[in-house]
Amino acid sequence: MAKIAILGFGTVGSGVLEVLDKNAAGIARRAGQKIEVKYILDIRDFSAHPKAELFVNSIDPILEDPEVSTVVETIGGIKPAYYYVKSALEGGKNVCTSNKELVATHGAELLALAVKHKVCFLFEASVGGGTPLITPLHQCLAANVIDSVCGIVNGTTNFMLTRMEEDGMSFEEALKVAQGLGYAETIDPSADVDGIDACRKIAILASLISGSEVHPENIPTRGIREITIDDIYFTRKMKLAVKLIAYASRGEKGGFACGVEPMVLPNEQILAGVSDVYNAVLVRGDLLGDVLFYGKGAGKLPTASAVVADVVDAEKIGTAIHDSLFWRASAPLKGKITNAGSYTYYVRVNNQDLQTLKEDLDGVVLSLQNQNQTAVLTLPMTEKEMEKKKAKLEKDGIHVATALRMLEV
Amino acid sequence: MAKIAILGFGTVGSGVLEVLDKNAAGIARRAGQKIEVKYILDIRDFSAHPKAELFVNSIDPILEDPEVSTVVETIGGIKPAYYYVKSALEGGKNVCTSNKELVATHGAELLALAVKHKVCFLFEASVGGGTPLITPLHQCLAANVIDSVCGIVNGTTNFMLTRMEEDGMSFEEALKVAQGLGYAETIDPSADVDGIDACRKIAILASLISGSEVHPENIPTRGIREITIDDIYFTRKMKLAVKLIAYASRGEKGGFACGVEPMVLPNEQILAGVSDVYNAVLVRGDLLGDVLFYGKGAGKLPTASAVVADVVDAEKIGTAIHDSLFWRASAPLKGKITNAGSYTYYVRVNNQDLQTLKEDLDGVVLSLQNQNQTAVLTLPMTEKEMEKKKAKLEKDGIHVATALRMLEV
Repeated sequence: MAKIAILGFGTVGSGVLEVLDKNAAGIARRAGQKIEVKYILDIRDFSAHPKAELFVNSIDPILEDPEVSTVVETIGGIKPAYYYVKSALEGGKNVCTSNKELVATHGAELLALAVKHKVCFLFEASVGGGTPLITPLHQCLAANVIDSVCGIVNGTTNFMLTRMEEDGMSFEEALKVAQGLGYAETIDPSADVDGIDACRKIAILASLISGSEVHPENIPTRGIREITIDDIYFTRKMKLAVKLIAYASRGEKGGFACGVEPMVLPNEQILAGVSDVYNAVLVRGDLLGDVLFYGKGAGKLPTASAVVADVVDAEKIGTAIHDSLFWRASAPLKGKITNAGSYTYYVRVNNQDLQTLKEDLDGVVLSLQNQNQTAVLTLPMTEKEMEKKKAKLEKDGIHVATALRMLEV
Repeated sequence: MAKIAILGFGTVGSGVLEVLDKNAAGIARRAGQKIEVKYILDIRDFSAHPKAELFVNSIDPILEDPEVSTVVETIGGIKPAYYYVKSALEGGKNVCTSNKELVATHGAELLALAVKHKVCFLFEASVGGGTPLITPLHQCLAANVIDSVCGIVNGTTNFMLTRMEEDGMSFEEALKVAQGLGYAETIDPSADVDGIDACRKIAILASLISGSEVHPENIPTRGIREITIDDIYFTRKMKLAVKLIAYASRGEKGGFACGVEPMVLPNEQILAGVSDVYNAVLVRGDLLGDVLFYGKGAGKLPTASAVVADVVDAEKIGTAIHDSLFWRASAPLKGKITNAGSYTYYVRVNNQDLQTLKEDLDGVVLSLQNQNQTAVLTLPMTEKEMEKKKAKLEKDGIHVATALRMLEV
């Protein structure tokens, strides 16, 4: 019998209790022992809850109880989750968390603490919700060097872009629908729409594949606020999809590119077919080639089921897991990670002057116009080159409304 | 230092040696120790090979050497692989294999032997080549009851169907191209085109999700020989794709459906977008909903990299893995597993008599005709009902050339 504590009884935390109850027999068989929740930490009043006797409002009894072998952290955010997790690891308890902000910000330190104290720090649910991704990445692909990961890791923005594409909604309309369905925060939706959530997730994946901490604040991050229905109109005609892509890849000479930005993808590309709240991450291994992991990126029970799978692994596999699930701490860079790669750009301007556009962009491969706008696809160029061309166009009186790179995989 | 033996130095076996050499440092770090090949069993002459000193032509020195902790079986087929694997497990050695025929036929017995002798019997590479599937299924989805798996598990037939759809080739032309590229056997391509390979793979997945041995001979299996360019023409117009689908699913009342057959899929279905030699398997967990695993289903290094990941797990995780990776032996059924589900059918007849077709099928939802043929989509019906309607049509002088069920997921 393994005894665990749940920190934070919100959506995911209550889901963990529910999952452990619902599929208890199968989980016990796979874990090789029964898994029982001994404490639930939440400062709110749960005295009317059927399991009221499990609730505590301080971390102390949990840390002091040697019977508790694993702590599930589903509070979210940094404070107080970080202190609780640190104390649990230092006290010789495994920690399983769904908290992407915590892992992206303090992952390296917490992994080192876990190794030092011979316990596990696991976080499958922090990226892709319930979709298996981190475990396959480090365990099943153990024989590979991972060259790149790229994909759609924020379900809310993917839902919004799908509504814009399929139902002709504007950004504002799609955001309202997403808020109405509880996918986006009502007061401040910026964690989703400005790419902050995706940035934390790619920071975790980038750290894992590079073996060295990649700090969220160093990752160039753009959200989808700039995408208009005009862009959807033009890209559809060009047989392209617009997706918020998070990526991390090794360069050929030891360089490392990483970012979050809206990109255009050819319709036949597998990621272009990922719609609504689904997430999908394409992983390229040096031996394996491309594999794709696809599923719903959020939701109470899916996310909780991933946390519980981590609890099973912590109790069963133990610390050997950190031979492959690990990254070193590193100091943050000054400024953002740069991407020196050349990309085809989709460019839209509020202007009909195709001739000047062609000249200033050194030629285009495709152009479309409507009453007052022009959209083109450029030849491949670097970000720096695009900045120069934008400045040139501006001088010629043409303002670039949107410039999106094309994802080529 | 872990010492291993490779049985069979064909494509996958030589790939395992290459992978262990190429990514030695990363593999050693993840395994927590160096992994060294001590023997290679092959009856052919490899005296000119750079590692000639490793080759043996009998299993005996391998079985007798207590230093060998894991045996990799990449011979394929049943004889002599089955005897070698059995002896290795009985001798207390882990076995990692890519041999789907062996696992589909003797998996239950070999898993029980592994548990009895406290060793591992692992076979990630037997389904989906290098694409992680078996490990995520039983480990990452440990908190779920798996309701169904369905997908494309044979790359050769998927390549052929893609050529037929994209390049207008006939079955025979597509087969020749597949043979020319080494995807299909030249002398007897039936393992691929008649669904035998897919049947073995779904037998493995069906056994795993049900916990009880599903015998390949009980799985109703149809290949793609019956698919013509007329079917491709009509299904394209109907915005459907034709795919060879392998599936296994729990019914609501404890029933279990399992089969391999060409099916039609709406174009927007994620599996419809899987083309060429790619494999993709959609897994539905009771908590998780749908997740998709996608990648190349074959190839030397991808498959070898999955075998090596199994070696790492065998050396590191050990027998605890069989708490979740296991199924019980069971006697084969008499006859085939039946599927009582209702499906929309795509039906093509060499006839223009739409009126009789409509009457005998009790109505259709869509119909298309060319010079001398008619294709329709029916209302949902069971297989038995379709057989009755086929007989009725036959009596009315209308022969059903093709009848394919629609996959609805």
